[in-house]
Amino acid sequence: MANSKYEYVRNFERDEILLPNTWIVVRIDGRGFHKLSSYYGFQKPNDPRALRLMNRAATHVVQAIPEITVAYGVSDEYSFVLQRDTTLFERRKDKIVTTVVSSFTAAYVLGWDECFPGEVSLGSQSEGPAHGTTLTMEMLPTFDGRAVCYPSWENLRDYLSWRQVDCHINNLYNTTFWALVQQGGMTQTAAEEHLKGTVSSDKNEILWSRFGINYNNEPEMYRKGSVVFREYALEDEASTGGGGKEGEAGLDVGDDSGEVTGASDPISKRQAEKIRKARRKAKVVTKHVDIIRDEFWVQRPWLRNGRPGRPVGDQPES
Amino acid sequence: MANSKYEYVRNFERDEILLPNTWIVVRIDGRGFHKLSSYYGFQKPNDPRALRLMNRAATHVVQAIPEITVAYGVSDEYSFVLQRDTTLFERRKDKIVTTVVSSFTAAYVLGWDECFPGEVSLGSQSEGPAHGTTLTMEMLPTFDGRAVCYPSWENLRDYLSWRQVDCHINNLYNTTFWALVQQGGMTQTAAEEHLKGTVSSDKNEILWSRFGINYNNEPEMYRKGSVVFREYALEDEASTGGGGKEGEAGLDVGDDSGEVTGASDPISKRQAEKIRKARRKAKVVTKHVDIIRDEFWVQRPWLRNGRPGRPVGDQPES
Amino acid sequence: MANSKYEYVRNFERDEILLPNTWIVVRIDGRGFHKLSSYYGFQKPNDPRALRLMNRAATHVVQAIPEITVAYGVSDEYSFVLQRDTTLFERRKDKIVTTVVSSFTAAYVLGWDECFPGEVSLGSQSEGPAHGTTLTMEMLPTFDGRAVCYPSWENLRDYLSWRQVDCHINNLYNTTFWALVQQGGMTQTAAEEHLKGTVSSDKNEILWSRFGINYNNEPEMYRKGSVVFREYALEDEASTGGGGKEGEAGLDVGDDSGEVTGASDPISKRQAEKIRKARRKAKVVTKHVDIIRDEFWVQRPWLRNGRPGRPVGDQPES
Amino acid sequence: MANSKYEYVRNFERDEILLPNTWIVVRIDGRGFHKLSSYYGFQKPNDPRALRLMNRAATHVVQAIPEITVAYGVSDEYSFVLQRDTTLFERRKDKIVTTVVSSFTAAYVLGWDECFPGEVSLGSQSEGPAHGTTLTMEMLPTFDGRAVCYPSWENLRDYLSWRQVDCHINNLYNTTFWALVQQGGMTQTAAEEHLKGTVSSDKNEILWSRFGINYNNEPEMYRKGSVVFREYALEDEASTGGGGKEGEAGLDVGDDSGEVTGASDPISKRQAEKIRKARRKAKVVTKHVDIIRDEFWVQRPWLRNGRPGRPVGDQPES
Repeated sequence: MANSKYEYVRNFERDEILLPNTWIVVRIDGRGFHKLSSYYGFQKPNDPRALRLMNRAATHVVQAIPEITVAYGVSDEYSFVLQRDTTLFERRKDKIVTTVVSSFTAAYVLGWDECFPGEVSLGSQSEGPAHGTTLTMEMLPTFDGRAVCYPSWENLRDYLSWRQVDCHINNLYNTTFWALVQQGGMTQTAAEEHLKGTVSSDKNEILWSRFGINYNNEPEMYRKGSVVFREYALEDEASTGGGGKEGEAGLDVGDDSGEVTGASDPISKRQAEKIRKARRKAKVVTKHVDIIRDEFWVQRPWLRNGRPGRPVGDQPES
Repeated sequence: MANSKYEYVRNFERDEILLPNTWIVVRIDGRGFHKLSSYYGFQKPNDPRALRLMNRAATHVVQAIPEITVAYGVSDEYSFVLQRDTTLFERRKDKIVTTVVSSFTAAYVLGWDECFPGEVSLGSQSEGPAHGTTLTMEMLPTFDGRAVCYPSWENLRDYLSWRQVDCHINNLYNTTFWALVQQGGMTQTAAEEHLKGTVSSDKNEILWSRFGINYNNEPEMYRKGSVVFREYALEDEASTGGGGKEGEAGLDVGDDSGEVTGASDPISKRQAEKIRKARRKAKVVTKHVDIIRDEFWVQRPWLRNGRPGRPVGDQPES
Repeated sequence: MANSKYEYVRNFERDEILLPNTWIVVRIDGRGFHKLSSYYGFQKPNDPRALRLMNRAATHVVQAIPEITVAYGVSDEYSFVLQRDTTLFERRKDKIVTTVVSSFTAAYVLGWDECFPGEVSLGSQSEGPAHGTTLTMEMLPTFDGRAVCYPSWENLRDYLSWRQVDCHINNLYNTTFWALVQQGGMTQTAAEEHLKGTVSSDKNEILWSRFGINYNNEPEMYRKGSVVFREYALEDEASTGGGGKEGEAGLDVGDDSGEVTGASDPISKRQAEKIRKARRKAKVVTKHVDIIRDEFWVQRPWLRNGRPGRPVGDQPES
Repeated sequence: MANSKYEYVRNFERDEILLPNTWIVVRIDGRGFHKLSSYYGFQKPNDPRALRLMNRAATHVVQAIPEITVAYGVSDEYSFVLQRDTTLFERRKDKIVTTVVSSFTAAYVLGWDECFPGEVSLGSQSEGPAHGTTLTMEMLPTFDGRAVCYPSWENLRDYLSWRQVDCHINNLYNTTFWALVQQGGMTQTAAEEHLKGTVSSDKNEILWSRFGINYNNEPEMYRKGSVVFREYALEDEASTGGGGKEGEAGLDVGDDSGEVTGASDPISKRQAEKIRKARRKAKVVTKHVDIIRDEFWVQRPWLRNGRPGRPVGDQPES
């Protein structure tokens, strides 16, 4: 029984190959998380259990896919950045996106019980749902995803800055909104109305004057989101020329030079394997820091150049 | 703190819209399942627990996405067929594919414990792994996926036939191979060598003469794979003109007629919502049957025309 | 001097393959023809010389590319339909579109002098430009183009109907507009204002009552556009079951049957070559007829099934 | 007669938008020019009339589309480079490619008579065809085309180097091949055999020792191809830091800085219009020079940064 008669259907398949020498960002988003967070009784405006589960799943993805350089997460979304010279899955878009989405989903579902241990949800908290936080087939957490290519380092940095600014704007709003509702006794409609047209300073003022909350003392995980990456020994800012206009220029020089094009002077296969191994061994950390300013990046040149740094604790060569 | 400075990065995003009036097939595949099946000690050549978990996850996906008409699974792959006139997610490819992949993955991971209860793996079976079948972060089941468009009903049928023929070819081979190894005491290399160049009848003969196995008595789930779909009252073959050349023509007439183009005489919004509801209520079943011949399709016209049939048990209008 | 160092740049090239088993329409449009028609003094509302040049260029394209079944043109646009089973250039989009655009442009420019002989433009016509109709580098006629895939015969027919309805709507408007201006002495602004909110019957009435023009007597080339195709002996409508609902069904039956999928029962290479040759020999004609109703298509089944018909003048087999 | 019934067919149209912040290269290629060059009796290995016609058509395209920075041509192909920040036609691929292809074709066909005046082809040259060089519908020159995106300046430079190295390799081969045939009296088959396995130095040696031809004295248009671009006053190499490793680094610094992203500090609309006008006024020149080394580019920074330079003859500001 030959299969050749039907095999022509493969000709309808299409593979999109992402443009070489561009930074690939895979962004995943929780599907219907507004409903899901109500169902499982997530705390408002931020549920540390849910955020830690996101971070845990992201850490798993970064560990499982060494080609990912850095990931940034806020609320129910996460962005994963792949090295611009990566050849993972020959840069086939569908394969890259679905692998990230599936790995993240699997880790999120498996990690759920640890982040939402049953007793917590059965406690005296008024917002706990009757059915607890036990995951059910009726309300499964799922994520959609997409890939975007950024041709320059500046474009990539701007993308990440965009997400972190969004985190700030949303969190300041949500913090104020829920303070008005939970502590101020407003209805949600009234709180929404109250905040219409306000700017950042207005919200800071409301938080401070009415509820004694200094927004800057709020947890950094809420205010800045989470950055997941491989940590090596930090570079001295001075030595890398960081901290100023010159530092930026210094960064830029490295970008379009040979290593990133796969063209002149490409790294050898053996070297590539060595890098992959070093990355697998490296410690993946989660930080809640500013990634808009240069400092974070200047101190961690491996995030840009793709070369593993010195393991933490090693003495720098002198 | 305005975000407008960075928002230009959205211009780098691309949405691929799948061609209207084509059948969309989303096929997912287990990633590294050879390794995973060893790790968790899946039985060879078929592990009914693993197959049932696949079917369970597929059933969840079909229930969760009413636009899916039928799904077909074999081994660690599953194909989901979306109605040719579907406008789900405006037919955005990434959104459709990642939603299916994520939903399947979530259901697979959550359903694992039920299909692989711990005690089984700790039993006396020699092939059981030391660490049992408890799912761990070290070896998460994940799936990649892709979408393919088929412009005609015949193309779609040929696609599904292609998968079912593949199922047959692979399962016959695997059944013979593992009989030679497990019951015949051959090494895997010897068994592979032994089967080189054999055709179907040779393998049937080996199974029968050496192991007394009549391949046709093997479980249908192994031989034919699994079809998941909404079941309604079957149509009488005679009444639909099925069962022969004429029947096929009869089928073809319906294909390119108005209802599938969204053009002339489109269904109303209210009618569409009614259909969606009827689908949600319909029973989703799993069968292990021939889907290459016309019979299966002629009896279930709703799989092609997208209109819910009569609920099972209802009397046909006379 | 090896070239290998630079050849990696080929990896940035992408080929889009148009979905198999779909009708491919390449539509070209004149670029800036409003300006160009003023520059060369085209007559308003229709310049028969310019339309004949369009038809001539289209005829050249249909002759040069046997895979094109039919073309339809109106004003400065033309649509070329490629057989749904064509494998021209392996269905690479860019290659198909640019070949059509370049062939059309070349034929248009080379054919210009014949359609716009110098003396005509130097005549006493008041609208003739000082520089005559001699083609210059300063104002070259150029065309952009795009390809669209249509999965079903009905979609293709609707596409062509869309273009012909557009032709009708625009030509009725333009005919009335220019009658008001040229014969009624209105300014263009006044004529535009006058026609605001009018429907077809209003315009017909204006033409008739004010200028004694019966729109239905206007040249068919203006009212119906131009259809370019290979003509064979017409099929008797009765014999093909045309002329009614049944006829349409009859047409539909043929659509999704084997011949169009390249799957079951594909035509042999030798047969394909024979078809190609027959097409090259066939007479390409230009007609100004209704292509919205079924009649045109029922009488010319080769436009749908891709098989050359009987040469004109041959006796049908009996 | 409303057209809304058919307008749904527009939903099948797709627009591909080329990735922002990448250099766009549109490469066109003559279709079947081997046959065409025989038909019209092109001289071998190079026909200066045909090359000049290519250059003339390319010059027209560069003048007509100010967004094109530089073009490079060899034989019957031409590559047009669009500024990385161009928003021409909203970067729609089909529109960009077909406009370039159509403009080039139109200029080529209209320019033919001037480059191939009739008398030349009727001369005593044995290779002149009976039908002369008058362009006919039977053998129209046409071009296909494609667009490729290059994310970095280095990638673009490597692309252009690839084409120029190709020019060199092909021209050295063709020059030697035709010397063997035309002056050495070899058959084409014998000449081909003779050159099998030879390297550049072998061919140079054959040319010199057998035919007294110093390849380096061959016309630069044949050896280096043609570069078409807007010329302004050259920059002093010293002042731009060109001419060495440092110069290259100097170039790279500029690449990913703000001006090219359309992000931070974008140029104003008014400034953009000013640039467009300056470009239209600038003289478009054709040179036959080395574009692999840095010198050409260092002296003409406007080819990279997109800013018009000082008009030739102006005094530099001091």
